[in-house]
Amino acid sequence: MKQKMDKRPSGCPIAFGLDTFGDRWTLLIIREIMLGGKRTYSEFLEAEEGIATNILVDRLKQLEADGIVEKTRDPENRRSFLYHLTKKGRDLAPILVEIILWSGAHDDRPVASRVMVEKALKDRAGFVATLRAGKTVR
Amino acid sequence: MKQKMDKRPSGCPIAFGLDTFGDRWTLLIIREIMLGGKRTYSEFLEAEEGIATNILVDRLKQLEADGIVEKTRDPENRRSFLYHLTKKGRDLAPILVEIILWSGAHDDRPVASRVMVEKALKDRAGFVATLRAGKTVR
Repeated sequence: MKQKMDKRPSGCPIAFGLDTFGDRWTLLIIREIMLGGKRTYSEFLEAEEGIATNILVDRLKQLEADGIVEKTRDPENRRSFLYHLTKKGRDLAPILVEIILWSGAHDDRPVASRVMVEKALKDRAGFVATLRAGKTVR
Repeated sequence: MKQKMDKRPSGCPIAFGLDTFGDRWTLLIIREIMLGGKRTYSEFLEAEEGIATNILVDRLKQLEADGIVEKTRDPENRRSFLYHLTKKGRDLAPILVEIILWSGAHDDRPVASRVMVEKALKDRAGFVATLRAGKTVR
């Protein structure tokens, strides 16, 4: 029986989206898979924002329950799983790219990284297509 | 002294975005202003998802601290405020539209509303421009 976070019944598509990925971590896990080509729990734990193990476990379960990621046994290590994006997960690419563009325009901290922002500015549609196709970009 | 939620120092534009609006409510308040033409605390409280007063107060403070909304005294009721989106706030329009499109493709519940989805599907760029210009659409 898979866990399922409550979806608010308002019918609003923005509310549905936020009920699925409206938190500080879910889209960062998607980033690790989609932009970073990461596949395993251990790799996700290495994300530089330092995700806690309990949050990672919870979000991966939720992403599976929502049909955004699928896991398969790692053929090289049968005790481990490989996580993949489904079509529903790959379809998050345009949202990630718009977030990248928004932050590129509004994050004025010296630490702000420009690499993804420049890719998105140079060719937004191409960048979305690359991500959606599962080609990693970093 | 305005409140300021911690922004993770990774420099990742996706993390910056999520640190700003990565929760279940912030973008719904933006929706109320941008799509619904709502302006006041009382109007935001009427949103059909039923936001709690403490969450609404907290998110409005954070949105002001982040420069996404500005408030002015209501000329018709000097004890009340009117909330407006700044340019930084209006620039969230493409993110909202991509969330609407994603949910339109993946929310298969009977309750799912198609009104915004159809507008976004019909003319994505025009819909973004309308929202960014502050013209309400419902």
